[in-house]
Amino acid sequence: VAKRLEKFKTTIFTQMSSLAIKHGAINLGQGFPNFDGPDFVKEAAIQAIRDGNNQYARGYGVPDLNSAVAHRFKKDSGLTVDPEKEVTVTSGCTEAIAATILGLINPGDEVIVFAPFYDSYEATLSMAGANIKCVTLKPPNFAVPIDELKSLVSKNTRAILMNTPHNPTGKMFTRQELDEIASLCIENDVLVFSDEVYDKLAFEMDHISIASLPGMYERTVTLNSLGKTFSLTGWKIGWAIAPPHLTWGVRQAHSYLTFATSTPMQYAAAAALRAPDSYYEELRRDYNSKKNILVEGLKSVGFTVYPSSGTYFVVVDHTKFGMENDVAFCEYLIKEVGVVAIPTSVFYLNPEEGKNLVRFTFCKDEGTLISAVERMKEKL
Amino acid sequence: VAKRLEKFKTTIFTQMSSLAIKHGAINLGQGFPNFDGPDFVKEAAIQAIRDGNNQYARGYGVPDLNSAVAHRFKKDSGLTVDPEKEVTVTSGCTEAIAATILGLINPGDEVIVFAPFYDSYEATLSMAGANIKCVTLKPPNFAVPIDELKSLVSKNTRAILMNTPHNPTGKMFTRQELDEIASLCIENDVLVFSDEVYDKLAFEMDHISIASLPGMYERTVTLNSLGKTFSLTGWKIGWAIAPPHLTWGVRQAHSYLTFATSTPMQYAAAAALRAPDSYYEELRRDYNSKKNILVEGLKSVGFTVYPSSGTYFVVVDHTKFGMENDVAFCEYLIKEVGVVAIPTSVFYLNPEEGKNLVRFTFCKDEGTLISAVERMKEKL
Ligand SMILES: CSCCC(=O)C(=O)O
Ligand SMILES: CSCCC(=O)C(=O)O
Repeated sequence: VAKRLEKFKTTIFTQMSSLAIKHGAINLGQGFPNFDGPDFVKEAAIQAIRDGNNQYARGYGVPDLNSAVAHRFKKDSGLTVDPEKEVTVTSGCTEAIAATILGLINPGDEVIVFAPFYDSYEATLSMAGANIKCVTLKPPNFAVPIDELKSLVSKNTRAILMNTPHNPTGKMFTRQELDEIASLCIENDVLVFSDEVYDKLAFEMDHISIASLPGMYERTVTLNSLGKTFSLTGWKIGWAIAPPHLTWGVRQAHSYLTFATSTPMQYAAAAALRAPDSYYEELRRDYNSKKNILVEGLKSVGFTVYPSSGTYFVVVDHTKFGMENDVAFCEYLIKEVGVVAIPTSVFYLNPEEGKNLVRFTFCKDEGTLISAVERMKEKL
Repeated sequence: VAKRLEKFKTTIFTQMSSLAIKHGAINLGQGFPNFDGPDFVKEAAIQAIRDGNNQYARGYGVPDLNSAVAHRFKKDSGLTVDPEKEVTVTSGCTEAIAATILGLINPGDEVIVFAPFYDSYEATLSMAGANIKCVTLKPPNFAVPIDELKSLVSKNTRAILMNTPHNPTGKMFTRQELDEIASLCIENDVLVFSDEVYDKLAFEMDHISIASLPGMYERTVTLNSLGKTFSLTGWKIGWAIAPPHLTWGVRQAHSYLTFATSTPMQYAAAAALRAPDSYYEELRRDYNSKKNILVEGLKSVGFTVYPSSGTYFVVVDHTKFGMENDVAFCEYLIKEVGVVAIPTSVFYLNPEEGKNLVRFTFCKDEGTLISAVERMKEKL
C-alpha cells in the first residue's frame, strides 16, 4: 500500500456493518436507513433506464441535474449559481470531497479540520499530502473553540474543511460561529470546503450554508448529496458547488477519479431535487420523531446523551457502563447486547479524545429503534 | 487548481462530445454506443431498485457481484480468485485505475506507460506523484519496442500500466509481447496494472490477461468494467482483481475516493456477468461487422487505416488531407464535414508523436457509420 494510506485501517463503517451481519445485531452504526427512498424517485430512475439514458453522462453532470442542484441551492441558501460553470456532479459526496481536496490542495498546504470528523477527511487530505491541523469540538455542546481555531491559522493555511450539521455529533454550526469562521477566512485568504449532506435534517434551527455569508461564496466549495435527504444512500450521487475558479480544480480531479457518474441515477436525482418543500418538511418531522424515540430510549438506558440538533446521529457518553474505551464498549454492545454503534475514537487525530463517546444513528424504523433500546435496557 | 493537475486540460472526450452536440455532427469520437444495453441487464437494475436494494453497498462490492466477477474471470483467464479478498468493485474502470495508482504508487516511483494512452493514466499518475516513463507504440502495427522498454526499467520502476486491447490504436498485445513483459517484470520485481475493458471486443485473436502468465498473478492488478461489454457505458461499474496484498491498497484508496458504488447497478452488473457465452459471441460478431463497415468506409474516403484487432476504435493517418495536425484535422472534420473523431496527440507525453493520427469509433449503429462515411466522402 502506498505511504499516503499506510496508517489507515479498513473504514469503521465497513468493519461495523460486517460485524452487525455476523452477530445478527441491530445496526445503529453506519448511517443508512432501513427503509426505502420515495417511489417517485425510484420510478424516475426506472424511467431513465427504460428511456435509454444509459451511456456516459457529461463529465460534470447531466444538464438536468446541474440545473436542479442550482435551483435547490437557490431556494436553500438564496445564492444564484450557474449550473454549467459552478456545479459538478460526483459519485457521492465522498467523491466530491476527494475531488475538492485532490483538485485544490497541494502537498504541504495546511488544512484545518474539526474533530471528530468523517474518516474520509483525514485519508483524503493525506492522499493530497496536506498538512492536517485539527480543532476538537468538545461535549457537551461541541462549540467551536474560536480562539484555538484562530491560533491555528497561518500563512500556509489553505482551507478549512467543515461539516454542518455535523457527523458524528449532531452539532449545527451557529450563525455566530459561521460569522467568526467567515471573518477568519476572509482576513487570511483561506478557502472553506463545507460538507452539508445532512442539511435537510436540522431539528432545532435552520441550516445555514457558509457560502451564503457576505464575501464567502467566492472562497467556498459547498458539498452535498442525494443519499441522506432521499433515503437512497446506495445511489451515490453527490455534487460540489463553487465559483468557476474553484470548480475548475474540482472538475479536473473528478475527470480523472471517476470521469462521470451513473447516468440514469442522475436523471432520478434531478427528479428528486424538484420535490416540493412539503417533502422536506415531512422528512424532518419523521426524523424528529425517530430522534425523540432514540434519545429518550438512550437516556432511559442510562447514557449521558449529548444534544443532537441535526443529522441522523446522536452521541452518548458510555463510561457509566464501566468499559475501558469506546471500542471495548462497542464490542461488548455487539456481542453481548446485540446492538451496533460506532466508536468515535477513529474520528479524531488523537483517538484518546474520543474514548468516552459512541455514536448511534436513528435512521431506522421505529420498531428497530425500540428493539435496540429494549436490548440495551435488558442487557447493559 | 492543485499543481498535480495544473498541466491538464478539460478531457478531450468532454471537449469533443460537446462540440458534437454544438455542431450537430455525427459523433464517432467518445466511445459510447448509440444503441442501448441488453434488456435483461436493464430489467435486473429495475428489479434491484424495486426490491429496495438502494442503501450503501459493502465498500468493496455487493457479494453477488464480487462472485460474478470472479466467476467470469475464471472462465476468461483460467485463474481462480477469491471474490471476497481479491475483487474490488469500483465506480467504473476509471476509478479502478485511480484507486490502483493512488493505493499502490508512492511519489517518485517510476511507472511505465505505453503511448498513446487513455488520458486518465497520465493525470492519475501525476496525482500520485509518480515519475512517468513512456514507450511509444508506433504505426503501422503498434508493436511493443521491447528493447526500449527494457532500457527504461530501473530499480525505481514500480509498475507498468498497460492496456490490451489497446485504446486508441486497436492493437492487441501478442502472447510473445506479454511473455517478454512478464519476464521483465518478474526479473525486476515490477507490478503490472492491466486495463482490459475491451477484452470482449477481440476480433483477430483471443484476448490474454497478463495475470494468467506464469508468475504474474501475484504482481498484477487486472482492471475491467461493465460498460463496453454491455453497451451501458453510463452505469459506471468497474472492478480490480488482484492478490490480497495488492487488493488491500486498491481498497484503501477506493474507500476514500468513493467509498462504495451504486447498489442497484451492482446487482444488475452481477446479472450481466452471468450472461451465457453466446452473448459475448454475438457482441463480437456485431462489432466485427460494424468494424468492417467503418474500416472499408474510411479506406474508400482515402485514409491510411491502421489494423485494429480489438476495441471499438480504429486509428487512421489523416495527413493526405493536408491539415497541419490532428487537432486541426478534427476541427475541420467537425465544422466542415460534420463528423467527430478524436485527435490522438493528447494521448502522448509528447503531443508531436500523435499529430498524424486520429481515432474513430465504430460503437454506433450501421446507419450512423454509413452516414459518417458518406459525409467524409462528399466533403473531404
Ligand atoms: C460511508 S458511510 C458515510 C457516512 C455515514 O453514513 C456514516 O457516518 O455512518
Ligand atoms: C471517459 S471516455 C472513456 C474511454 C472512452 O470511451 C474513449 O476512449 O472514448
